[in-house]
Amino acid sequence: MSILVVGSVAFDDVTSPSGSVKNILAGAATYFSLAASYFTKVRVVGVVGEDFGPEQEKVFVGHGIDIRGIERAPGKTFRWGGTYTDNLNEAKTDFTHLNVFESFQPRIPKEYEDTDFLFLANIQPTLQADVRRKMSAVRLVGCDTMNYWIRGTPRDLAETLKLVDILLINDTEAKMLAHETNLPRAAQKVMAMGPKALVIKHGEYGATIFFREGAFGFGSHPFRAPALPIEEVKDPTGAGDSFAGGFMGYIASQNELTREVLKRALFYGGVMGSFAVERFGPERLRSLTREEIDARFQVFRELTHLE
Amino acid sequence: MSILVVGSVAFDDVTSPSGSVKNILAGAATYFSLAASYFTKVRVVGVVGEDFGPEQEKVFVGHGIDIRGIERAPGKTFRWGGTYTDNLNEAKTDFTHLNVFESFQPRIPKEYEDTDFLFLANIQPTLQADVRRKMSAVRLVGCDTMNYWIRGTPRDLAETLKLVDILLINDTEAKMLAHETNLPRAAQKVMAMGPKALVIKHGEYGATIFFREGAFGFGSHPFRAPALPIEEVKDPTGAGDSFAGGFMGYIASQNELTREVLKRALFYGGVMGSFAVERFGPERLRSLTREEIDARFQVFRELTHLE
Repeated sequence: MSILVVGSVAFDDVTSPSGSVKNILAGAATYFSLAASYFTKVRVVGVVGEDFGPEQEKVFVGHGIDIRGIERAPGKTFRWGGTYTDNLNEAKTDFTHLNVFESFQPRIPKEYEDTDFLFLANIQPTLQADVRRKMSAVRLVGCDTMNYWIRGTPRDLAETLKLVDILLINDTEAKMLAHETNLPRAAQKVMAMGPKALVIKHGEYGATIFFREGAFGFGSHPFRAPALPIEEVKDPTGAGDSFAGGFMGYIASQNELTREVLKRALFYGGVMGSFAVERFGPERLRSLTREEIDARFQVFRELTHLE
Repeated sequence: MSILVVGSVAFDDVTSPSGSVKNILAGAATYFSLAASYFTKVRVVGVVGEDFGPEQEKVFVGHGIDIRGIERAPGKTFRWGGTYTDNLNEAKTDFTHLNVFESFQPRIPKEYEDTDFLFLANIQPTLQADVRRKMSAVRLVGCDTMNYWIRGTPRDLAETLKLVDILLINDTEAKMLAHETNLPRAAQKVMAMGPKALVIKHGEYGATIFFREGAFGFGSHPFRAPALPIEEVKDPTGAGDSFAGGFMGYIASQNELTREVLKRALFYGGVMGSFAVERFGPERLRSLTREEIDARFQVFRELTHLE
């Protein structure tokens, strides 16, 4: 089945203890769509500037990703620069030039209207809600957000949360959103705002999926997937979007939405996140094979499986 | 088979967001021995003062724990007071009165000499090394330590680490000990100091066991066990010692030391830690049944198991 992602396409400058790169194709929609493309048919809605040319198009098209929804606007593409020091969990932002992204108004091409799944990457909550309402026929909606919106536009975000099925955020965001320091209690509070399930990402410790009581009819106890112990994280940028791409992409590749499918999706999320951080930018996500992905899925499985 | 634990017996005052208790029987050896007693025969070496009477003895003896190695010294038992605020991962120490523990010199009763397994709870590294040398015939030695010794007596600790098989510490301690912020790299460096395996505890995210290349002959890739998402942690004191008790106790209950045994031991460690924090002090550990423990083991298993 098909999945539509709405989010940023960007050029990044990244510095980490492992090195430095400039002007690499990045952005949430890029990481998400590349990761998801190994599982299902992906469509993208976003905006780029005049500096986005055939070289960049090829990255998407080479993975069978439909970019008819990427609008070309006069001006430059969104640019972000960040530096990671020893604490690879948090980047220091060197610059943010929103450029054409500043006035982004998502437009859904007619050809996208039959899309089965929707992922709202981290953009302004009112735009997320707008897209979600336009795509009212989808089977399942996944959503990301960040501290900036949780703090800055809580009412808009609350409206959006009523419209999504699965929210994917990290520990800090979940605690901030719920005004609650205990994680399982925070999870319950966040799900009371709308989402039927909540994926909380714990960075190098993996991720937990919580289910709202009675929401899917397959039990409400949580499930945890590990993360891979990685000796050299070159560039953590996009790990969360790649996680979301693996998670949502796997779900979209399945016929039924069972507890087992969501559990495996959580593992595939971790798998795609683990590949993303091995190289700078989305480089590693561009060169994978499904065999490599499934081999790593087995490594993840063995990491936590008792006989 | 039998296991000997050498460590502190104490009286604690604890305050947490869930309440407050005074003068409760605690200490690393208490938590460890109660947790391990559900799996195997436990012996304790420690020291107490004149305030340790029949009431306290009964706690151990009621669990079949051999306390002939707990020495009675003139004076008072070790006393500690701590307060947990919202961050339940770290206590603010209100007072530490070492009392009789200050001049603790572990003495191994003759009857303990045939003990099969040894756990060196968190005490001065030279005392740990001394006990370990005296118990040279044991099959396996587990060891704990803390920031205080890592910073304060690194040479003594290095000597001790050469003598132990499995070290159990948390993330912060592992990184500090290895002078390395990346966890799997830190693990390799710590194991190069002596231990054949290293258990790193991640608090609410579970624990990872790393194996030194070729050490046990069953592969060196790490294994992760989850922790249970708990809505109300009443008292985190002793969680690490209870983890160690479940981990080492399960190992001591098995005939062979296989990879599968160590994996299950890591799960049982998490299980016993999860019980410990449900009530103040070791209260919950005193009233368990093996059936409750195995039922929670299944909960842990389902938390990470794919079909």
